[in-house]
Amino acid sequence: MDCPQGFFFSTAACGFKHADRDDLGLIVSQCDAICAGVFTQNRFQAAPVLVAKKHLAQGAPVRAIVVNSGQANACTGEEGLNNCQKTTELVADLVGCQPRQVLPASTGVIGDQLKMDKWQLAVSQLQANMGQKPAEAVAKAMMTTDTFPKLATKTLHTEQGEIRLLGMAKGAGMICPNMATMLGFVLCDAAVEAQWWQTTLTRAVEHSFNRITVDGDTSTNDCVLALANGASSVSVNGEEAQKLEAALTDLCQELAYSIVRDAEGGTKVLRITVSGAKTEADAQLAARAVGNSPLVKTALYGRDPNWGRIVAALGRSGADFSPEQVSVSISGYTIFQDETPVVGDWDTLLAPALSQRDVELAITLGNGAGSCSLLASDLTEDYVRINAEYRS
Amino acid sequence: MDCPQGFFFSTAACGFKHADRDDLGLIVSQCDAICAGVFTQNRFQAAPVLVAKKHLAQGAPVRAIVVNSGQANACTGEEGLNNCQKTTELVADLVGCQPRQVLPASTGVIGDQLKMDKWQLAVSQLQANMGQKPAEAVAKAMMTTDTFPKLATKTLHTEQGEIRLLGMAKGAGMICPNMATMLGFVLCDAAVEAQWWQTTLTRAVEHSFNRITVDGDTSTNDCVLALANGASSVSVNGEEAQKLEAALTDLCQELAYSIVRDAEGGTKVLRITVSGAKTEADAQLAARAVGNSPLVKTALYGRDPNWGRIVAALGRSGADFSPEQVSVSISGYTIFQDETPVVGDWDTLLAPALSQRDVELAITLGNGAGSCSLLASDLTEDYVRINAEYRS
Repeated sequence: MDCPQGFFFSTAACGFKHADRDDLGLIVSQCDAICAGVFTQNRFQAAPVLVAKKHLAQGAPVRAIVVNSGQANACTGEEGLNNCQKTTELVADLVGCQPRQVLPASTGVIGDQLKMDKWQLAVSQLQANMGQKPAEAVAKAMMTTDTFPKLATKTLHTEQGEIRLLGMAKGAGMICPNMATMLGFVLCDAAVEAQWWQTTLTRAVEHSFNRITVDGDTSTNDCVLALANGASSVSVNGEEAQKLEAALTDLCQELAYSIVRDAEGGTKVLRITVSGAKTEADAQLAARAVGNSPLVKTALYGRDPNWGRIVAALGRSGADFSPEQVSVSISGYTIFQDETPVVGDWDTLLAPALSQRDVELAITLGNGAGSCSLLASDLTEDYVRINAEYRS
Repeated sequence: MDCPQGFFFSTAACGFKHADRDDLGLIVSQCDAICAGVFTQNRFQAAPVLVAKKHLAQGAPVRAIVVNSGQANACTGEEGLNNCQKTTELVADLVGCQPRQVLPASTGVIGDQLKMDKWQLAVSQLQANMGQKPAEAVAKAMMTTDTFPKLATKTLHTEQGEIRLLGMAKGAGMICPNMATMLGFVLCDAAVEAQWWQTTLTRAVEHSFNRITVDGDTSTNDCVLALANGASSVSVNGEEAQKLEAALTDLCQELAYSIVRDAEGGTKVLRITVSGAKTEADAQLAARAVGNSPLVKTALYGRDPNWGRIVAALGRSGADFSPEQVSVSISGYTIFQDETPVVGDWDTLLAPALSQRDVELAITLGNGAGSCSLLASDLTEDYVRINAEYRS
């Protein structure tokens, strides 16, 4: 894996929740990095979200991201905030920087306090492993119900030289990002202007992590952080900035796809494309109503081309449209238009498409130019089993 | 069962979907009845919804309600509308009234046309069984994935004599009524004023069927019809009107409870009470976010007092509140307040309460006087199985 220059990784197995696995990850930039961040819009915000936002607001260049699984450190009050602050101090000592140059992130059970005794012991492990671990080890350390680590890379060739981007994300449940998603980290070795980098990240997230849903539930810990440390000595401007934005968006979309691909208990990824909507907001309402409908999601799991459930969801979505202008296609076959089903043996014709992991659902509302694309998982017995048993 | 005076019932086994069961029901009032109705707000409205609304708008007194299961006659275009109209003509001939005095209702698979040949044959069966069947037979004929028929009765004693109310409903999935619910019929033998009856029904529905959710999906066929035929010779006014409204609301709440009790695959009924909200709308947003959260619903199924998922849902609900003022109680135990969990061995303490069918969840937002109560089902493997296999 082609890693951006100037970033190092370390992990530790602290036993925060399970023995015999890494559950603490550290990303260090050898030099000061510009950092952009987007965070959950949930009114309950986890301690690491509050601390990371505070650190970013102080404007100091970032040197490290520290992430643990096992405890989300959300709804943990003053004690949780103090613990979180303490972890940034431990890491700052290790890295040789200020605590405000360290951004914390946590994922796991809401309400549990960090196990500070284990954090103290972990520092020597992190030190011993520094630079000895690949980025993938950090992506693994932050997994909870995820079944595989999620990474993606991009390389851009510019006149000044090569720029590399690496992204990692975790997430499989409590996924319906609003302005931000589960944990996602992007590393880039370009030299960028801070405000442009933030705007660019926000736009990229809007068209990637904010366009997926597993269960309609937005986490208290969602955040995406993007570091750019300039270690490639390539500054981006003009046309190259556009290319970097495109690469960043691609990268985020790949990671977003991976999250839905790994949805708790999921067997399918439904790509819902709503077009011809009155506004983009209407297109989003329509896509989200379909993507979050338990009936659509169970039909998808059952490989049932059940357009009836799709139009029922559209009809209650709140999107503005006239039923007679709506058409619905699955994998290229139009199965509903003019307010009636198109005649065809869809169970047979669509069986091959519906047996694939990736299913395309195209909806045209027919009263405008608004559009929206959303990735959704299916709803399976395993989702129920995982979430009925998660804490035990 | 004490049936209101002047109503008769009939059913027929037509083989619309399954053999060996009644799937067509008829309710006849021996005299003209005032009818109030509330209908689905889904933009896709089934043919029987459109026809029933048209008939009601014509203002003729109602003589009959005809209801079939098997085909929802939704998204069936002109042909569906014509078929629906034809069924009201068949019933009008049988009853001896105008077709516009017959209100149709259908439930079942969206998109399938009515089986008109079977309807034609059914008329003689309906005629033979007229008055020979109890109300329960109609409640059974309209079942789809329901596991039991849903009926409730009330008797009011007035100075002029006795008034009786009987209600029946069907529904187990695609349940998140918005201004109306799945099929519900209320029969009353009082003499009422038409406009008052409609206003009263609308209010009763708002506090019963519109306060339940199984899966957040609003059906294309939802409707509640309430007939009052005056056969008791009791006219209601003043204080008695208030009593009748209270009885009607009670009746609708009983039926609404039955629907959640029979939720597809459900094992529990969660009564969510949100109080202290800034407005009633905020209370509703909060209650619905919690009641529709797949994570809260699977935790309920798993008997897990997982307040973390509850507060995460509150936080994304869109309701206006400050996290530090929120408290959450399950079955009388406060488990979350001051932004942190209350210390306690909740897994043990709450185990008896969480093993019951009915679970009470009380949420206080702490910034106003708005409140809302909502009944929600849990999410189980059986819900997934039923809905992944429903059509096949």
